[in-house]
Amino acid sequence: MLGNPPHFAEVFAEVSMGHFLHRSFFSPTFHIEMLSRTARSLRRVPISARPTARCFSSLDLIPDEPAGPRVVTDTVPGPKGIAASKAIDTFQDPRTHVVVPNYELSKGNYLVDADGNVLLDVFAQISSIGLGYNVPALLELGRSDEFVKAALNRPAIGSFPPVQWADWIKTGLLTVAPKGLDQLVTTLCGSSANETAFKCAFMAYRQRERGGSDVPFSKEDMESCMHNHSPGSPDLTVLSFKSGFHGRLFGSLSATRSKAIHKIDIPAFDWPSASFPSLKYPLEDHVAENEAEEKRCLEEYEEILTSSKTHSPVAAVIIEPILSEGGDKHASPEFFRSLRLIAKKHGAFFIVDEVQTGVGATGTFWAHEKWGLKEGEEPDFVTFSKKMQAAGVYHKKETRPNAPYRNYNTWMGDPIRALQARKMIQLIGENSLVSHTATTGSVLSASLSQVFSSSAATGKVANFRGQGEGTYLAWDMASPEMRDAFVGKMRKAGVQIGGCGEQTVRLRPMLTFGEKHVEILAETVERVLKDL
Amino acid sequence: MLGNPPHFAEVFAEVSMGHFLHRSFFSPTFHIEMLSRTARSLRRVPISARPTARCFSSLDLIPDEPAGPRVVTDTVPGPKGIAASKAIDTFQDPRTHVVVPNYELSKGNYLVDADGNVLLDVFAQISSIGLGYNVPALLELGRSDEFVKAALNRPAIGSFPPVQWADWIKTGLLTVAPKGLDQLVTTLCGSSANETAFKCAFMAYRQRERGGSDVPFSKEDMESCMHNHSPGSPDLTVLSFKSGFHGRLFGSLSATRSKAIHKIDIPAFDWPSASFPSLKYPLEDHVAENEAEEKRCLEEYEEILTSSKTHSPVAAVIIEPILSEGGDKHASPEFFRSLRLIAKKHGAFFIVDEVQTGVGATGTFWAHEKWGLKEGEEPDFVTFSKKMQAAGVYHKKETRPNAPYRNYNTWMGDPIRALQARKMIQLIGENSLVSHTATTGSVLSASLSQVFSSSAATGKVANFRGQGEGTYLAWDMASPEMRDAFVGKMRKAGVQIGGCGEQTVRLRPMLTFGEKHVEILAETVERVLKDL
Repeated sequence: MLGNPPHFAEVFAEVSMGHFLHRSFFSPTFHIEMLSRTARSLRRVPISARPTARCFSSLDLIPDEPAGPRVVTDTVPGPKGIAASKAIDTFQDPRTHVVVPNYELSKGNYLVDADGNVLLDVFAQISSIGLGYNVPALLELGRSDEFVKAALNRPAIGSFPPVQWADWIKTGLLTVAPKGLDQLVTTLCGSSANETAFKCAFMAYRQRERGGSDVPFSKEDMESCMHNHSPGSPDLTVLSFKSGFHGRLFGSLSATRSKAIHKIDIPAFDWPSASFPSLKYPLEDHVAENEAEEKRCLEEYEEILTSSKTHSPVAAVIIEPILSEGGDKHASPEFFRSLRLIAKKHGAFFIVDEVQTGVGATGTFWAHEKWGLKEGEEPDFVTFSKKMQAAGVYHKKETRPNAPYRNYNTWMGDPIRALQARKMIQLIGENSLVSHTATTGSVLSASLSQVFSSSAATGKVANFRGQGEGTYLAWDMASPEMRDAFVGKMRKAGVQIGGCGEQTVRLRPMLTFGEKHVEILAETVERVLKDL
Repeated sequence: MLGNPPHFAEVFAEVSMGHFLHRSFFSPTFHIEMLSRTARSLRRVPISARPTARCFSSLDLIPDEPAGPRVVTDTVPGPKGIAASKAIDTFQDPRTHVVVPNYELSKGNYLVDADGNVLLDVFAQISSIGLGYNVPALLELGRSDEFVKAALNRPAIGSFPPVQWADWIKTGLLTVAPKGLDQLVTTLCGSSANETAFKCAFMAYRQRERGGSDVPFSKEDMESCMHNHSPGSPDLTVLSFKSGFHGRLFGSLSATRSKAIHKIDIPAFDWPSASFPSLKYPLEDHVAENEAEEKRCLEEYEEILTSSKTHSPVAAVIIEPILSEGGDKHASPEFFRSLRLIAKKHGAFFIVDEVQTGVGATGTFWAHEKWGLKEGEEPDFVTFSKKMQAAGVYHKKETRPNAPYRNYNTWMGDPIRALQARKMIQLIGENSLVSHTATTGSVLSASLSQVFSSSAATGKVANFRGQGEGTYLAWDMASPEMRDAFVGKMRKAGVQIGGCGEQTVRLRPMLTFGEKHVEILAETVERVLKDL
């Protein structure tokens, strides 16, 4: 149990691999000793700082979730996981592997790996698992005739949509459409959702320049586009923000400004980027500085929108409500409202990329709901993917292209992901998982604040942020190396946690993450920080 | 039954909607009258021109396929299909809808629409259905615990691959890897498969320029790429061919040269395109002209590769073995071999886009197998999607990026599509469906040749092509309007057929398309041509 915190070793020593596969391992009465230990640290959080979570019990959705993590190998991944990666290495790059899971044994918030290690998963497949592993209600959907036939008869939705398509969408994805947006293009992933929004924006921008949807394309446009030349292939741009991440296909990657390793050697469009505020924490101690920083960024942003008009106008602005891959960077609702209004003033469409922030983790279904945009100020496009499992773009009817086949491809999404999204949306509603996550986020924030104010965190943790954004919390470590060491030790202590940016730790638990998981997480963070 | 050929009306008059849902409708003994009628036209084909199809019986895979098409509404789509499209119109563009199918009732080669029309489907969801609708062996896979759990626990394969991943790929997608290519990156669609190949090619090209995989990136590269500027975002290009289609995301669309409506108003990279030969048919009557045309195109191609080196070198060449969306354009194996060798000579990677041509329809598993490339001359990348249901890029180990996270995204494919591909590959092998399709293609080609040499086709059909390429056959109609009219009348006569290019009809039946379907198709083509 090399490197594992001692009391985990104590607890786990008695659990053999034989026990592991036994159903009783997953029962809530198991691991009682560990739970009582993890609970101890929480007791140190003052009652006033521990809001009571709404009475959601994950037992409803995940009846037999493990009671806690369990690490049985000296390293994570252990020998079986390493062997599985080596087998993959013969045909596919394994260097990005973290662990090799056994998804059939994973349950709820717990990922089980090839070696039988049970990890509390607060990274959730890069924030793409909404409710948990093997949620019985979702498996039931998967076994339904409707789902199986939709899976094995994948249609070209744009030309041959299933007869149930309107029903599936209207009772599913459309029920959570952001305010003001009643149109939906379905896609297969977040990058293509963003590129679809770009394309719609470019088409609508040129249509406005032409003078309307019924003005025909010029012969020059038709001919020059076949050579990739202007004016048919116009010198229009998408403005994005430094540290923003919008995907890794050629258009989305041109808007991505996260890290050089994501971009180097790949040709890119000469599109502009604006500075995103670097806020100082705690916010309440830096009010004037942060206001000045946001003002500086808004001025730079408007200057780009203005000056680019003469050569390569900005047709669209894209922004994440929280710059996630780039290091969980936040700004005030006022900042985002100003971005939206300034874009409108300069005739640029406004795309909100909710691929990572969407679907409840920030304590509202969409993170941009917190901006308080007035009617008529809504984004032009909101993109989604990841936790929704389905991907796509919500938009307004005015940005539907003026002719068919302009925004088109073979599959245009996948019906089973629309069905899965519909079921998840229903379960999220029935179990009030968004408000649950808002409350759990407050509990988690209070617990971690307590840990971070202790001596264990001194000189190691800074810029704890995301309070008021559900469980979408993050903090910086003292260095990139320390962040990587922390993430590795957390895994060995039974918690799969994620990093982002240069030296940030980000929390991306599922929506069924609750108070019992908070206790385990906070206690483990504290132990690992002490050990760092 | 407005506009339907009279003998279809006769046959169908006795079939009420009540009968339609009855299982006996799907039995092979039904529609015997129609079968005997459709068989008559085939008898007109001389025996010598009718190779005997290998004894594959689709009964093995599709035990209760309808015996023939059946159109029950005056228009196709009928009132229910039109209403379904209108319901979709409230949130999604319906102008590209052809029919709105009921996938639960569709079977084998027959698509059933919302109105109960049963259409012989030789378009197959834009060439993306491999074996048929509701193939029992595939539905059985869909109901398996393995498939259901893989569907509802979608992993981030790059970091958390399922423990079965190596097995699923090695016993599935890798068993059909093109010769010389033993590496595989899985993606979600054909466009992203092509863009992944582009990215790998650009990275490998720059690595070669730097002098090897261990030469670190320069500070200038690291910094400039964050501004989308050269040298970090290099002025390298992908060369494609006029009429080629490679997808509609920003990189792939820059390589696509099919139609203006696909490209207009979307910014594009200034990448070069070369002419693709315009061959004259029948080939045997135009040998010298066609050779000269291919020579002209090869010279133009090499001139671009040479002259671009001084400003924006071509890092990769991409080509479809048959330019499909662009109008089913063929060239000789010698032409493709020359393309490959000239690319190598000029240091450009060679990408074969088999998204539409792959998986057996051309009578070999990969269409480029027919080029006769020697060992060491294999393509650098072969991309696939559509009928494979899984998507991705086969490549060589030398084009695996030199550092992790350079070619990475959240999902990196979808395990259920890998499972589906594996099962289909097994079924294709067990039923010899590739050789079956080669033989069926010969029968179909002979039957259509007979039809096209009759007075029904005079002045209407030209450039019948694809002989020797399985069922991947195509012909031109006299005008775009006549092509559209033909496709519409075929649908009303019970056959869903597709167009491509300006005025081409393309056949893209499934691999279970057999001699009994050939008879129906040829007979319907003849009747509709007469009616045109």
